[in-house]
Amino acid sequence: MANKTALFQHNFRVRYAETDRMGVSYYANYFVWFELGRAEYLRALGVLYTDYEKSGVFLPAVEASCRYFQTTTYDDLLTIQVAVSHFGKTSVKFVYRILKDGKKAAEGYTIHAFVDRDNRPIRIPAEILQKVPIQELKD
Amino acid sequence: MANKTALFQHNFRVRYAETDRMGVSYYANYFVWFELGRAEYLRALGVLYTDYEKSGVFLPAVEASCRYFQTTTYDDLLTIQVAVSHFGKTSVKFVYRILKDGKKAAEGYTIHAFVDRDNRPIRIPAEILQKVPIQELKD
Amino acid sequence: MANKTALFQHNFRVRYAETDRMGVSYYANYFVWFELGRAEYLRALGVLYTDYEKSGVFLPAVEASCRYFQTTTYDDLLTIQVAVSHFGKTSVKFVYRILKDGKKAAEGYTIHAFVDRDNRPIRIPAEILQKVPIQELKD
Amino acid sequence: MANKTALFQHNFRVRYAETDRMGVSYYANYFVWFELGRAEYLRALGVLYTDYEKSGVFLPAVEASCRYFQTTTYDDLLTIQVAVSHFGKTSVKFVYRILKDGKKAAEGYTIHAFVDRDNRPIRIPAEILQKVPIQELKD
Repeated sequence: MANKTALFQHNFRVRYAETDRMGVSYYANYFVWFELGRAEYLRALGVLYTDYEKSGVFLPAVEASCRYFQTTTYDDLLTIQVAVSHFGKTSVKFVYRILKDGKKAAEGYTIHAFVDRDNRPIRIPAEILQKVPIQELKD
Repeated sequence: MANKTALFQHNFRVRYAETDRMGVSYYANYFVWFELGRAEYLRALGVLYTDYEKSGVFLPAVEASCRYFQTTTYDDLLTIQVAVSHFGKTSVKFVYRILKDGKKAAEGYTIHAFVDRDNRPIRIPAEILQKVPIQELKD
Repeated sequence: MANKTALFQHNFRVRYAETDRMGVSYYANYFVWFELGRAEYLRALGVLYTDYEKSGVFLPAVEASCRYFQTTTYDDLLTIQVAVSHFGKTSVKFVYRILKDGKKAAEGYTIHAFVDRDNRPIRIPAEILQKVPIQELKD
Repeated sequence: MANKTALFQHNFRVRYAETDRMGVSYYANYFVWFELGRAEYLRALGVLYTDYEKSGVFLPAVEASCRYFQTTTYDDLLTIQVAVSHFGKTSVKFVYRILKDGKKAAEGYTIHAFVDRDNRPIRIPAEILQKVPIQELKD
């Protein structure tokens, strides 16, 4: 059941390198920002991804999706909201919303498998299930 | 109706810059490769995107999605298959498959709006409707 | 003459996307970080690069250089120090140092031309000469 | 002594992702292209960098530099010329020139250390010294 706590948010600025000659942020970079939001969210929850990697737990993406609602560009101060909406047996689904001046600029999700060094599926570490709440992006 | 001609294919190598410290191609880069396939496909059909941009026709992404089936890494010689699966009134859907040694590594799609310089929707140029066939990715 | 005020500093974290399969930050990304430091430095001085672009003043790079002293990797919290070391008639030289745990990880510079929309050299805006001090990176 | 054989050349197209909102190729991407040229050059000489990595030989950059002479942009068909200009005891210097329509767009170099898995300097493998000629970029 989704809890009611506020969604995690992280602010960041669009870099010049992230724009393209249409004058806006290049579409693939939203997935880089999703990763940024994911990392900051886990850090805020006390889950250090780098420690998991050291112990042989990896989280490759198996699916990624984004819908774009309005353009963003260089120097825009954006907000990314991040939540985990679902845990499978050996997978996790993150959902994201990117806001510009409080209005939705993009929304998407990524699904990741938990795998070991040999790329074999593994169970989700208990600490992660305990520390990470299940939430939905609400409008 | 989808025609039966073979799908357009383009080969490319994974760059070192495109890998991450998991040792594989970073997931957002597949969307860069989708763009690469899109550009090469349109060029092969005699549709020059740069000419359209000069005349004020732009194709921003409104949706992008990818599923990952096996990892790829530096120096892999990959094949991207590209097709247009649908034209809306003011939009187009591209579908993509990325192959490694003949086996599916990733599959995805992007939807783009046709807009003018002021980001207003415009009708699809007749030349594009004439030159670009509707096709599906078949297994 | 170089003044004695402390160098401007900005902190940032290395993104997963910025690493490569050697397990470290990919070398070209240091130039993206230089741009990041440059933007934050000018903002701190009250010089908004986006406003200059709107009025037709651009700052393309004409030279860029970096020396690497120790590797950095995902999630490292890095510090970038930025200064302007020289103004030419129509150019500016920025110098940068990237620190990891207080120790030098990289050092470099970029030289930029001031040009108009048609890529012709223009004089440096007076506001910039007034607001931006000349400094050196000191060890 | 530099030999007189023609320089190695490799052609590639600028990707949309590689441009920025100034309408031109983003400056850091030239270093990605240097890597591309380096990889293709070594492949042409029969030196497979991936094989060296497997055997524990790595080539991190210790210095990188580029001068920009004219802008390039999306879809430009560029040529990169690559050569090795110097071997140190445990290092190598690559020089690069990027041409657009036969005219110099950029020129630069990178210096790389030969190191083992623990980042300790190692001697240059004999095969590399035998297969890779010393050349200069000539105008």
